[in-house]
Amino acid sequence: MKAKVYITLKQGVHDVQGEAVLGTLKHMGFKGVDDVRVGKYIELRLDDLSRSQAETRVKAMCEKLLANTVIESYSFEVIDQ
Amino acid sequence: MKAKVYITLKQGVHDVQGEAVLGTLKHMGFKGVDDVRVGKYIELRLDDLSRSQAETRVKAMCEKLLANTVIESYSFEVIDQ
Repeated sequence: MKAKVYITLKQGVHDVQGEAVLGTLKHMGFKGVDDVRVGKYIELRLDDLSRSQAETRVKAMCEKLLANTVIESYSFEVIDQ
Repeated sequence: MKAKVYITLKQGVHDVQGEAVLGTLKHMGFKGVDDVRVGKYIELRLDDLSRSQAETRVKAMCEKLLANTVIESYSFEVIDQ
């Protein structure tokens, strides 16, 4: 079983890295990009667990380690793979 | 229109950050995690473009800036939003 975790800065938190990427894209001639937000994408391979066990565990990992919930939001999906 | 870009290290490329996260999860008592891979998740907000234009543009951005294609793979999805 595999979990895919997406971590993004919360709305309103200044995204310096995203701004830098946006600036560079414009500088390179890519028009039509309004905003860039840079976050983290984490893949976890999990031992055999039920889906609900896996979801509970991944949620706890996000809350306790993977995301800084003061400034970051997270979402995840658990897939059979 | 919005693009969600997922960038991961290619298989076989040593993921030091993923190893550190795995070690910490184990140390914190999270059992049943076999592997962790840490990548990037980038959201781009795009001006009004057709879907195929947006896809072509995002692919070019990935190839030229967002991903280091020597060691990283990327995938993306374009969504109406």
